[in-house]
Amino acid sequence: MIHKTTSRVIASLFGAALATGAAFADDMASYTDMFEPLPALPPIPAANSLTAEKIELGKMLFFEPRISGSGVISCATCHNPALGWSDRIPTAVGHDGQVGNRNTPTVLNSGFLTSQFWDGREPDLEGQALGPIQAEIEMNMDLEAAIRRLKEFDIYHQHFAAAFPGDDDPINAQNIADAIASFERTLNTPNSPFDRYLRGDVGAMSVAQVEGMKLFVDAGCVACHNGPALTDGNFHRFELPGSKDEGRFLVTGDDFDMFAFRTPTLRNVAVTYPYFNNGSVDDLRDAVQLMGQQMLGQDFAEDELENLVAFMHALTGEMPNVTIPALP
Amino acid sequence: MIHKTTSRVIASLFGAALATGAAFADDMASYTDMFEPLPALPPIPAANSLTAEKIELGKMLFFEPRISGSGVISCATCHNPALGWSDRIPTAVGHDGQVGNRNTPTVLNSGFLTSQFWDGREPDLEGQALGPIQAEIEMNMDLEAAIRRLKEFDIYHQHFAAAFPGDDDPINAQNIADAIASFERTLNTPNSPFDRYLRGDVGAMSVAQVEGMKLFVDAGCVACHNGPALTDGNFHRFELPGSKDEGRFLVTGDDFDMFAFRTPTLRNVAVTYPYFNNGSVDDLRDAVQLMGQQMLGQDFAEDELENLVAFMHALTGEMPNVTIPALP
Repeated sequence: MIHKTTSRVIASLFGAALATGAAFADDMASYTDMFEPLPALPPIPAANSLTAEKIELGKMLFFEPRISGSGVISCATCHNPALGWSDRIPTAVGHDGQVGNRNTPTVLNSGFLTSQFWDGREPDLEGQALGPIQAEIEMNMDLEAAIRRLKEFDIYHQHFAAAFPGDDDPINAQNIADAIASFERTLNTPNSPFDRYLRGDVGAMSVAQVEGMKLFVDAGCVACHNGPALTDGNFHRFELPGSKDEGRFLVTGDDFDMFAFRTPTLRNVAVTYPYFNNGSVDDLRDAVQLMGQQMLGQDFAEDELENLVAFMHALTGEMPNVTIPALP
Repeated sequence: MIHKTTSRVIASLFGAALATGAAFADDMASYTDMFEPLPALPPIPAANSLTAEKIELGKMLFFEPRISGSGVISCATCHNPALGWSDRIPTAVGHDGQVGNRNTPTVLNSGFLTSQFWDGREPDLEGQALGPIQAEIEMNMDLEAAIRRLKEFDIYHQHFAAAFPGDDDPINAQNIADAIASFERTLNTPNSPFDRYLRGDVGAMSVAQVEGMKLFVDAGCVACHNGPALTDGNFHRFELPGSKDEGRFLVTGDDFDMFAFRTPTLRNVAVTYPYFNNGSVDDLRDAVQLMGQQMLGQDFAEDELENLVAFMHALTGEMPNVTIPALP
């Protein structure tokens, strides 16, 4: 079943793209101007200065399984650096093997997102960070218990004091969130073939990838997948076969948001399978075809799919070089 | 309650140490001769040549959660590089949060052990590697299912072919074991303060650490904790408060082995807490005192404990510099 998008935002953006269609013809700039290379860092909130001390502490906390109820699950369990900072299973497996109902988003470039979680229920990484620690089906740790656990280690006292020098009692929930968010803001993947192409290296993408990029614009994918992380940050209604997840509606209670999810980033999409909010689609080609059908009302031909998938592969950037911290 | 050791091996070794007691007096060589620095590599079995291709593949498999039933547990979950390649909880937590009854041994320097598992039921790392994958309370994955899963990835076909070039069907159980064992043989921690001291750098250990080393010899700890990994590889009866684990007896059925466990390595003991087969002792000082009481029939004085614990800290070596692999 094919559904037209009901998002006002996508409609206006898509309309704008079509209105300038004549200029698209052979001028590559008309394509590349639709995009921007990934910056080295995402926006940094004034309230959470990105210091080396916070990044180091945040890395420790990200890999710290002892802030989970079982003592063996850390942020890195589901946001696994070996697996594109995600888990490559349909939906997350957490405390006592409980299975969640949404696919784990990658942490990579998550600082570029204008809201967090599939349903955007948190505005920023600081708001996101404490959710999975406490969620009963994820890490299942009471926040106060997590804080007590961290306070058992001298080294955490030292690291929190160094990262938050103005605080009398720096091992607290807000600082845990701030540190993890700071670390996550460093997990970016610049210099993909696409980024190098945008910066003028016309040999960085193959012919198929360039054709895929052009089709990505011409078909209208770019209406929602734009900006540095290739997401508009908006919520779009999407009927995923087999999914009854009401998405953004569960946050706002607004019928307009029923079955709507935030546009996911396409950065590193080739290494962050499986796809969609329930992780039900393994194959990138299938995912692209489904999006064409659902969001754009069109079936891509085989050669179009090949080019689009080739372009998706050009979005894989340099992975962050993170060494595993030695925890106390 | 204090138990004399019943091990024939410890008795004979300890007797030998006492017999030469006169020479111990002030001659440091009489102490250092009891030890040997950790070699850069452990013994390598002729049947499993240590190649770069196997090490690389073994690293991938070690971090690979998709050879577990849940898809989220890998060797690195319990043998966590951030936690001294162990888990720092009393006993392992595995599939669906099930809790095992033994403490996770570190992988560090495990190639130097003459048998594997607390009860020595496997002779080598090759034999050990496949156990936790299949154990229902650990990774809970049928071996054939694990092999099928790996075969889904082109990159694993390439890596297995490169690591085992003579094999027609290289993705098989023996090769999985050989690759993981090969990777593990590289996880050694040379150049601890103790090793540097043994090589002539008399400033590498503090006065307390040197005193601790001398007491370690004089009190007889070295009777069992000797050789490059500071374990004799033998099984010793040990009544651990609160533990009903029959240990080696469960393997041999020999009453002599009731409650016997293989002497654990003391390499990196300061970072591989908690201690003993059930992980019931958190504090290194308490662990040392308990061993003195149980194995040597003596209570160490406070200053003796301080020196022994200081010496234990001198056994922490350079951690292996392992980058997290990018899995397919």
